[in-house]
Amino acid sequence: MFPEQVQFNANKWLRATGDLADVVLTSRIRLARNLQDVPFTRWALPDDLASVTARFRRVASGTAELAGMAVIDFPRLDALEKEFLCERHLISREFVEGKKESLLTLNSDETISIMVNEEDHLRIQAIRSGVDLQAAWEELNAIDDVLEKGMRFAFDERWGYLTACPTNIGTGMRCSVMLHLPGMVLTQRIDKVLSAAAQLNLAVRGFFGEGSENTGNLFQISNQITLGATEEELIQKIANIAEQIAKDERRVQRELRKHAARLIEDRVWRAYGLLTNARLLTSREVLENLSDIRLGISLGLVEHVDFRTCNEILFYAQPAHLQRMAGQPMEASDRDAFRADYVRRNLTKENP
Amino acid sequence: MFPEQVQFNANKWLRATGDLADVVLTSRIRLARNLQDVPFTRWALPDDLASVTARFRRVASGTAELAGMAVIDFPRLDALEKEFLCERHLISREFVEGKKESLLTLNSDETISIMVNEEDHLRIQAIRSGVDLQAAWEELNAIDDVLEKGMRFAFDERWGYLTACPTNIGTGMRCSVMLHLPGMVLTQRIDKVLSAAAQLNLAVRGFFGEGSENTGNLFQISNQITLGATEEELIQKIANIAEQIAKDERRVQRELRKHAARLIEDRVWRAYGLLTNARLLTSREVLENLSDIRLGISLGLVEHVDFRTCNEILFYAQPAHLQRMAGQPMEASDRDAFRADYVRRNLTKENP
Repeated sequence: MFPEQVQFNANKWLRATGDLADVVLTSRIRLARNLQDVPFTRWALPDDLASVTARFRRVASGTAELAGMAVIDFPRLDALEKEFLCERHLISREFVEGKKESLLTLNSDETISIMVNEEDHLRIQAIRSGVDLQAAWEELNAIDDVLEKGMRFAFDERWGYLTACPTNIGTGMRCSVMLHLPGMVLTQRIDKVLSAAAQLNLAVRGFFGEGSENTGNLFQISNQITLGATEEELIQKIANIAEQIAKDERRVQRELRKHAARLIEDRVWRAYGLLTNARLLTSREVLENLSDIRLGISLGLVEHVDFRTCNEILFYAQPAHLQRMAGQPMEASDRDAFRADYVRRNLTKENP
Repeated sequence: MFPEQVQFNANKWLRATGDLADVVLTSRIRLARNLQDVPFTRWALPDDLASVTARFRRVASGTAELAGMAVIDFPRLDALEKEFLCERHLISREFVEGKKESLLTLNSDETISIMVNEEDHLRIQAIRSGVDLQAAWEELNAIDDVLEKGMRFAFDERWGYLTACPTNIGTGMRCSVMLHLPGMVLTQRIDKVLSAAAQLNLAVRGFFGEGSENTGNLFQISNQITLGATEEELIQKIANIAEQIAKDERRVQRELRKHAARLIEDRVWRAYGLLTNARLLTSREVLENLSDIRLGISLGLVEHVDFRTCNEILFYAQPAHLQRMAGQPMEASDRDAFRADYVRRNLTKENP
């Protein structure tokens, strides 16, 4: 059971506020931190892990910034609750599958989440709607400062923060934006965007993280290099690139509207027709067709649906979200029926 | 230009009246007749053909049964008008492509059409909605009698009516029903139906006639044998079989509703969503998805659309029908857009 502080109903990071929110769904930053005097999680003994969670609990309860947050004994959550958090991008797949003593801390807005005893002792994440990296960073930085005051982090003068995996060393920071790029995909310019990102040492992933394809034309772009630049520089770089790609995407969408109006309108309304009429829908169908509806909103074709609704459906149509909504576990075919009902209810004009 | 008598707006044979009209769209009977003293059309000289049309005109204008009908100098129709008549199943493909002197006679309801100088000198057709072969036969028979009084037909005491193709010899009659069998196709029982028809010496064709597949789950079943039985016997045979198949189809549909409700509902509403939202639709898409909507009407799922509307869309969404509706020739992509608008306007709830 989740504690009272977190009800997962604010959806603040899904509200399609923030800059360029038509293209940039979310901005995320996470920091990797480890205690100086405890082996990394993978090699830690049970007592070591218990000491990490105990010290985290003490610091969390003793500081104003963290006192209001829920501290959850993670292994006691049931499988559905864990999956729900993972679908929500509040925790990692690795954390779900971990068997060790661990904690999850969340604020009520879900804009801050802290995993204790993931690959690193601490993984601190801030998530925001649209391009909003600066604000995310300020919130994250303040929490990092508070935590650092209470528990000494492994830090090397030359290398910076030390992490379990060398790819995180230095700032320990991974900064990412989730972009919706239907125009780039439709006009086959996406490969250019992706290779430009690669040249800038940025990693590109799908909606479901590493290894996932570009289902629904969603792309997560993040820094691969954590070393040799300040946090502010890394953030600025991602923010600049997100802004550049988003503006290019807008331009391409306008061109499509101008030069292929009929095909685009047909595509958008077919997607709308499917999602508002099907009685069985898979996750993939929702993801793919929601992409066309977002495009339709951008182009002013679909007027009664907004980006916030699309963002919410994107997350809530996932299996664990649906089962939580239904209040019970469901088999795949029942989920498909429940998903179709949920999506239809939220997209149809009669029922905004 | 078509004469004033025929406006093609009654659609009497598309009204889904008549027995079993949920499954049986139309009943058709046609008679093949030839003048005794003129070579068959294929071998006839221009003067021969002119003599056939002249004699037909004379008889037509001199009898009450035919006097009200339009007699059209067929070669003077433009290509779109010819195609329109062919799509409407009032004339044959062969007649469209013929270059010779020919006439087409139609009553204002389009329930009677007479081709002069098709493969046979006369092809007289009656078309009705639902299973209504007896009434079609009575109307057709009366016209045949009138014509026979005015022009002597080639008739042999032993063989019956002589025709250009031996497959029509005897009664010269082809009697057919167009069946919509989505339940049989979905449950893969259609092969049994078709092989049973073949054993009874019946021919099965698609909506577009010989060689066409079963697009839209539509099947035309007709007698292959024209010899050795009376017209009444042939008609009764087709009527019995149509009734038997239609009742089996209804039963199968009820089973589907009972045992696969979700899948069927999903199928029906997806089709509805597509046809009421797409901005570009091909003929084939209309045919295929209309089939699911008809099934939805049969099962009580789609309540605001009726079979008559489906029948009309089936015919009016064809290329020449659309162009006639638009009042101008259109290229394929413009037709797809016009078709989508037409179909959407006629199927959506808001605009019954």
